[in-house]
Amino acid sequence: MHKAINYLCASAMLLFAAGALYAQSKQQPLTIAKQGSFMIGGSVITEQGSFDLNNALKPQGQTFHGDHAYVFYQIPVKAHKLPLVFLHGAGQSKKTWESTPDGRDGFQHIFLRKGFSVYLLDQPRRGDAGRSTASVAITPTPDEQFWFTQFRIGNYPDYFPDVQFPRDSVSLEQFFRQMTPNTGAFDGAIVADACSEIFNKIGNGILVTHSQGGGPGWLTAIRNDKVKAVVAYEPYSGFVFPENELPQPIKSTGLFGELKGIGIPMNDFLKLTKIPIVVYYGDNIAKEPTLTWNKDHWRSGLEMARIWAATINKHGGNATVVHLPEIGIYGNTHFLFSDLNNMEVADLLSKWLKEKGLDK
Amino acid sequence: MHKAINYLCASAMLLFAAGALYAQSKQQPLTIAKQGSFMIGGSVITEQGSFDLNNALKPQGQTFHGDHAYVFYQIPVKAHKLPLVFLHGAGQSKKTWESTPDGRDGFQHIFLRKGFSVYLLDQPRRGDAGRSTASVAITPTPDEQFWFTQFRIGNYPDYFPDVQFPRDSVSLEQFFRQMTPNTGAFDGAIVADACSEIFNKIGNGILVTHSQGGGPGWLTAIRNDKVKAVVAYEPYSGFVFPENELPQPIKSTGLFGELKGIGIPMNDFLKLTKIPIVVYYGDNIAKEPTLTWNKDHWRSGLEMARIWAATINKHGGNATVVHLPEIGIYGNTHFLFSDLNNMEVADLLSKWLKEKGLDK
Repeated sequence: MHKAINYLCASAMLLFAAGALYAQSKQQPLTIAKQGSFMIGGSVITEQGSFDLNNALKPQGQTFHGDHAYVFYQIPVKAHKLPLVFLHGAGQSKKTWESTPDGRDGFQHIFLRKGFSVYLLDQPRRGDAGRSTASVAITPTPDEQFWFTQFRIGNYPDYFPDVQFPRDSVSLEQFFRQMTPNTGAFDGAIVADACSEIFNKIGNGILVTHSQGGGPGWLTAIRNDKVKAVVAYEPYSGFVFPENELPQPIKSTGLFGELKGIGIPMNDFLKLTKIPIVVYYGDNIAKEPTLTWNKDHWRSGLEMARIWAATINKHGGNATVVHLPEIGIYGNTHFLFSDLNNMEVADLLSKWLKEKGLDK
Repeated sequence: MHKAINYLCASAMLLFAAGALYAQSKQQPLTIAKQGSFMIGGSVITEQGSFDLNNALKPQGQTFHGDHAYVFYQIPVKAHKLPLVFLHGAGQSKKTWESTPDGRDGFQHIFLRKGFSVYLLDQPRRGDAGRSTASVAITPTPDEQFWFTQFRIGNYPDYFPDVQFPRDSVSLEQFFRQMTPNTGAFDGAIVADACSEIFNKIGNGILVTHSQGGGPGWLTAIRNDKVKAVVAYEPYSGFVFPENELPQPIKSTGLFGELKGIGIPMNDFLKLTKIPIVVYYGDNIAKEPTLTWNKDHWRSGLEMARIWAATINKHGGNATVVHLPEIGIYGNTHFLFSDLNNMEVADLLSKWLKEKGLDK
């Protein structure tokens, strides 16, 4: 009986996949006016002494450039004025925004087709931007069942019943393999430095962040007024508040414990009130405190986001928190932009960009 | 006087750069039928024990996927039959083949425009393919003046007089920043495993390697007959010979000492005689042994390549070594495909691909 159901499910999935492929195969070609890559930001270490050409493996007098970001960009023909700059989250690279684990178009492609120039980062000390001024030791630690659960695909080995994540093993393997380690400790200020330099290079644009990228995202918008809007998918840590308006920490059974805001000078905070901001959260997040730690972890994030947006708006800002199930979109994981319904998630963002006049 | 010359040089370079930009700005848009990214190959570590949802940070019963490659691909409209698969060298990522340090089109773009599907790898334990089953410690060690010299831009701080590398500091910084560390020890067999899996996935194609990628390149062609040709830019180590035909090691004043061939079974070696192979070397490589270690390092590589090609051809193969200065192309560094004359270097490859019927 179980086997029969599995067979039916597999058949349905194949039909679905075939449908998706057919839909994509009908697409017009992408017409790219220009594409390329560059490194941006970062710092330099110079070892004391003089470089000796005859002892060239000695570090004396030599330099080391590190802590930059890597950027791959594509500019479509007849691009909208404001590009989208995408910053990934913890343990991820720009792959986050590319092809989905089951090989469908990611936000990179979807927003190119919608006419946006797209800039994808590997943040400093990650991926192709691997040179770090800080040392690191990297050890392979089996942790994927944790991440499956933490990212709300389900409570491992169970998938959430309505989850918008493909259930075949190949897709799950792709998802696991897209994780990539820090090559130096995460440092939000260094990430924000490099992000800000991107906007100095390319001009006005819209910053799109995921998860841990949220914190450096706010810092980037604060330090560079060329950031004309911020879109944050499931930020958790890094919410900044005026120093004297810090909320109570939010307790959680999540495995990272209680969640605190970060105090910054009022003048800095007020810069976040000058631009439109939208924050999205997916499904299977608890409404009340619960012992189910993954649902409770994201409950604390969502609650903090709401307090934060209210603080922004109290000071004259324009921040919106969208919890997808509340508008009838169900089953999204922490990676809502690569979930099975990512076209719907993208259309939602398109609608917001249009409302705010950001897609001209 | 020096200042005046520098000023003239800088002005000439600006004019040149402006000309290049103008030439590129006149280009037609790229029309991409399909693009995307995926992870390929690799292995899995599984920690003994059972995963405990309530102790989800403990590794027991959890998995770790590592040692895969990352691939970004673009398929142009009306693509030639055989795609080009690009494997970078030591300390590099797929950035090697993208925009050049001075922002011109790299081989990624040039060969897309020539109608080839282009697959760029981050090899296992590098860049966006960072998860490694081997532990590593990474320390920032100033070494860039060494690499400047080793890669034959010049003998630091001097540029070679005719070098095809831009002399502005911004380009040099971009070049330095595109280095990215191993996140696990380099292992040619693991790289070849992942490369071979790419051909299993995409079918017949042409493998293009750089430097340290040369060795895993030969191994990939040996283990997978879907590799229909190999193009190697300045391979150094990793030349494989029949076990009983190993050449004498080549002594060198290069900083990596003498260069040895690697013995493999004759049956494996003979597979390299079934496909066309071309190997390119740039300029400023010594003709005779010399104490100038960078020129002598590459002299040993070039000499080994010639012995190797002769061995391939003696057994009925079709391998060619091209030393660019001998055909009137001067000043190329170790990164000839991103040098100032990379269009000429690309056209040379086009001509070879056409001669061998590989561009249909």
